[in-house]
Amino acid sequence: MSHISLAGIFPPIATPFAANEDIDFNHLQSNLERWNKEPLSGYVAGGSNGEFVFLTLDERVEVVRRVRQAAPRDRLVIAGSGMESARETIDLTNRMAQVGADVALIVTPNYYKSRMSVPVLERYFRQVADASPIPVMIYNFPANTGLDMPAQAIISLAQHPNIIGLKESGGDVTKIGFMAYETRSADFQVVAGSAGFFLGALSVGAVGCVPALGNFAGNQIAQLHEAFKRGDLDTARAVQLPLIEVNTAVTARLGVPGLKAAMDMLGYYGGPVRSPLMPLADDERETLRRTLIKSGLLS
Amino acid sequence: MSHISLAGIFPPIATPFAANEDIDFNHLQSNLERWNKEPLSGYVAGGSNGEFVFLTLDERVEVVRRVRQAAPRDRLVIAGSGMESARETIDLTNRMAQVGADVALIVTPNYYKSRMSVPVLERYFRQVADASPIPVMIYNFPANTGLDMPAQAIISLAQHPNIIGLKESGGDVTKIGFMAYETRSADFQVVAGSAGFFLGALSVGAVGCVPALGNFAGNQIAQLHEAFKRGDLDTARAVQLPLIEVNTAVTARLGVPGLKAAMDMLGYYGGPVRSPLMPLADDERETLRRTLIKSGLLS
Amino acid sequence: MSHISLAGIFPPIATPFAANEDIDFNHLQSNLERWNKEPLSGYVAGGSNGEFVFLTLDERVEVVRRVRQAAPRDRLVIAGSGMESARETIDLTNRMAQVGADVALIVTPNYYKSRMSVPVLERYFRQVADASPIPVMIYNFPANTGLDMPAQAIISLAQHPNIIGLKESGGDVTKIGFMAYETRSADFQVVAGSAGFFLGALSVGAVGCVPALGNFAGNQIAQLHEAFKRGDLDTARAVQLPLIEVNTAVTARLGVPGLKAAMDMLGYYGGPVRSPLMPLADDERETLRRTLIKSGLLS
Amino acid sequence: MSHISLAGIFPPIATPFAANEDIDFNHLQSNLERWNKEPLSGYVAGGSNGEFVFLTLDERVEVVRRVRQAAPRDRLVIAGSGMESARETIDLTNRMAQVGADVALIVTPNYYKSRMSVPVLERYFRQVADASPIPVMIYNFPANTGLDMPAQAIISLAQHPNIIGLKESGGDVTKIGFMAYETRSADFQVVAGSAGFFLGALSVGAVGCVPALGNFAGNQIAQLHEAFKRGDLDTARAVQLPLIEVNTAVTARLGVPGLKAAMDMLGYYGGPVRSPLMPLADDERETLRRTLIKSGLLS
Repeated sequence: MSHISLAGIFPPIATPFAANEDIDFNHLQSNLERWNKEPLSGYVAGGSNGEFVFLTLDERVEVVRRVRQAAPRDRLVIAGSGMESARETIDLTNRMAQVGADVALIVTPNYYKSRMSVPVLERYFRQVADASPIPVMIYNFPANTGLDMPAQAIISLAQHPNIIGLKESGGDVTKIGFMAYETRSADFQVVAGSAGFFLGALSVGAVGCVPALGNFAGNQIAQLHEAFKRGDLDTARAVQLPLIEVNTAVTARLGVPGLKAAMDMLGYYGGPVRSPLMPLADDERETLRRTLIKSGLLS
Repeated sequence: MSHISLAGIFPPIATPFAANEDIDFNHLQSNLERWNKEPLSGYVAGGSNGEFVFLTLDERVEVVRRVRQAAPRDRLVIAGSGMESARETIDLTNRMAQVGADVALIVTPNYYKSRMSVPVLERYFRQVADASPIPVMIYNFPANTGLDMPAQAIISLAQHPNIIGLKESGGDVTKIGFMAYETRSADFQVVAGSAGFFLGALSVGAVGCVPALGNFAGNQIAQLHEAFKRGDLDTARAVQLPLIEVNTAVTARLGVPGLKAAMDMLGYYGGPVRSPLMPLADDERETLRRTLIKSGLLS
Repeated sequence: MSHISLAGIFPPIATPFAANEDIDFNHLQSNLERWNKEPLSGYVAGGSNGEFVFLTLDERVEVVRRVRQAAPRDRLVIAGSGMESARETIDLTNRMAQVGADVALIVTPNYYKSRMSVPVLERYFRQVADASPIPVMIYNFPANTGLDMPAQAIISLAQHPNIIGLKESGGDVTKIGFMAYETRSADFQVVAGSAGFFLGALSVGAVGCVPALGNFAGNQIAQLHEAFKRGDLDTARAVQLPLIEVNTAVTARLGVPGLKAAMDMLGYYGGPVRSPLMPLADDERETLRRTLIKSGLLS
Repeated sequence: MSHISLAGIFPPIATPFAANEDIDFNHLQSNLERWNKEPLSGYVAGGSNGEFVFLTLDERVEVVRRVRQAAPRDRLVIAGSGMESARETIDLTNRMAQVGADVALIVTPNYYKSRMSVPVLERYFRQVADASPIPVMIYNFPANTGLDMPAQAIISLAQHPNIIGLKESGGDVTKIGFMAYETRSADFQVVAGSAGFFLGALSVGAVGCVPALGNFAGNQIAQLHEAFKRGDLDTARAVQLPLIEVNTAVTARLGVPGLKAAMDMLGYYGGPVRSPLMPLADDERETLRRTLIKSGLLS
């Protein structure tokens, strides 16, 4: 199996909806045309910012198929294909591979939190990776799942030949550094799950980023990464710091409704969210606009 | 709409699997034949103890269809039909109604925890209840969802004519008493989501119970309820207290694998769990056996 | 050692301050004169509602001395004497005994949360109980300490001859029932740490209550208890339920500033809190007043 | 007021005890003589690793007095002087200043967690800073206090002329970067509260570190800092990563007992902890030894 690089920026793209909440594939296409011109390494389709939990299985597959068709061949398409059960995750991963996904991003199962011990999680990811025709990334997102995948399980799973990396959205650079160090001799890559701690994560060994912010600020995040790679930490920091507030706004504070509102303000198509999510209230929208202006993204 | 009583015991029944993890409908039938002889008010199919998150949509519907067929007409069949999105929840609820479910049990959406504000949750349950052909129960289970539905939202939703009750699995009798009091003039019923705090919940106004333990100890839990109803608190307590440890074992501590192992020990069919859940380790099984003996359920 | 009964109501009395934040012993005296006429079993001095963490060691001792002097001989004076270290807790407990405390209430040490394992907590309470000239109650208050003392440790400590009970403020009736059951043959008593779940706790074996609300609603809480003891659950519930909202207001929601404001409204002396606590804002005060009126405590 | 630099390494020094748990000032002196030869910028006395919650007020002051006497004049002595009440914190801070402390480190009050709102915390720190004869650092340590001081409060307090910095032990580099950015024009410095995330924190604007690990690995941590300052991120990372596991061992996992055991293994005086803390179990000690060897600190 040839090495697949997870270095660079992979926006977890929003799924555009029409007013009736159906997927709006035309706007998916138009967003992709714009993203294709930005210095990105690929796309995550069907991630948390893609509202995957609101999509039917067929919709999740179709989104990946469309993204693969619209993306340049040299950009990775990483498909979120995690379900709660191993059997459904394996089925969906196979379907994603069939429509061209390069990598499967598998979120930790989490409904039975108290039973998700290290052995349970390890067995699950091994089952999935054994069965998957494409490489697997582990997806840890404690804020949404209520479960923080232990470093010990990650380090053990890094030895699996079909598990190539981790999207770590927890933001704990102590853990990221520890995992990077302990997996240094494995073919395993850690990517930051948010632009908020990208520079911190890079400084301890992460190689890439899956930033919600990449839906509308891919240029800036790529610039941060380039500065870091050439050893220009001052520039990297000068890009990183003003992005934090806007990043927090469109992730922790306002979530996908905030992300989509920001996309609308910046000329991408954001559009509606699916219920139960609600669009931003007017005052939230106004605060978001001011935050975008303060960050320099909006003038 | 005629009043539907949620008084009594409604076990959230386990979904039996064969060794290959396919649903074993024969054993579902045999379990039901035994439960039908116990003093129960109905069944919850497709709840957390039914491993609903591991079932396909078709499987969830088929389980409810079978349970409705096997259950006496005067027993309620309460169908878990919650999904993350309003549109999928409404679709699934309609399917459940078509196969004979009497009530829909709708778990709080929870993936986007930080956005699940009171207005979001209220709008969601109103949308679902408006669209549902059968009455709706709200399902609050913080330990699994990582989200505790605020009392304020419950109290407001209790006014909706198609929302008839709440399965509260959080175990906070302060909250249960407050909700019971504030909804006293509404047609709204609170049921305890576990046998561990059933007596405590009854004492402050709950009317029924959806106990995991009801999969194998329905007689005892019904006995507790009967004693309470006739004002014999000493007997109620004498039944309640020895059940707590075994209840904790098959819920918080060992989860569904523990529940199914206990069912096997007590002559019901428990059988395997679906992956990623793993069967009990030998020492866990032995501890469980001793707990069952201590409780008097196993001799 | 003769049996000490923890049955009944023991308000954790507020510590009155003057405008300059010095202790106002005159108002402590006047409050006690009023409480002495209410059907209470004793007082907790230097508990969480007494702002013990804001008092110097000398002040903590002096408050207990004054309470013991003012209280009738047949009322217990329970003195909060917990510190973080065993040596300071033992010293302070000895001082409390010297000024007449009947029982020492020892909060779980909690600063080094991750090290407060069951063996550590058991050893600590054994050390203190061995050294204490007066009986010891364990004080578990997870909301303030960030630590929930495990039932297993409580059950083991209940065997100690100088540990006579537990003030459980966590409100988990599953845990309370389990502890009551497992300690049924020991000389050990569980008291509810709040009026919010008093009836629920009584129903599973608690014998008393240490209610913040007892600072101004001792009559009502005692009435609830009396009704329960004579088997009149309907009356007990009719008293319990309307008290929950006001209880939540003066504990979880508004804390000691709310408690003291309510005392002021109801003719006791509440007065200022010590900084960093701040008095209620005007809107909080108005909401509290309405809650008191709704509960029937204020007309 | 002349600028006080918080750049560099400030170990939060352990308080040595004799077998009877009394403070062992001779070993404090001998440790200091060794630390004085290491490239440190100063000392934190009476911090969490100094078991300050187990010391009497007089002991806390005396430790600071001794440290000031033994430390070179150009090394800062930062004294932990936080109490729960403003009045006691102010008293203790004054005493610390009198014995020569250069800076007061004030932990967030935390017992009444639910009342510690942003206005409450801001008022508290302003009161203390107004009254303090020496500059104040805010001390945020969520793992021990159960309270995470909001960035918003920090940013506001950074404007106070007598509040010069923050010891942030939470490890969230998103928050650290945000605070560094928002306070960039104030005379305010952020220091990392642990060596585990020092490099990550430096990369987003922190200037120093208060590392438990500095009790026995000050040379390495200073080396990391030097490499970072000269732009040699590869070396900084090569030092940082192997330290994470040992850092976690002597903080989150084993706490002060682990820290003191490691000091004993590495030729400093660690000695006993005060009860309720217990010394490491044999297997913990053996694991710690292997971790120290793996890290290269012990051969």
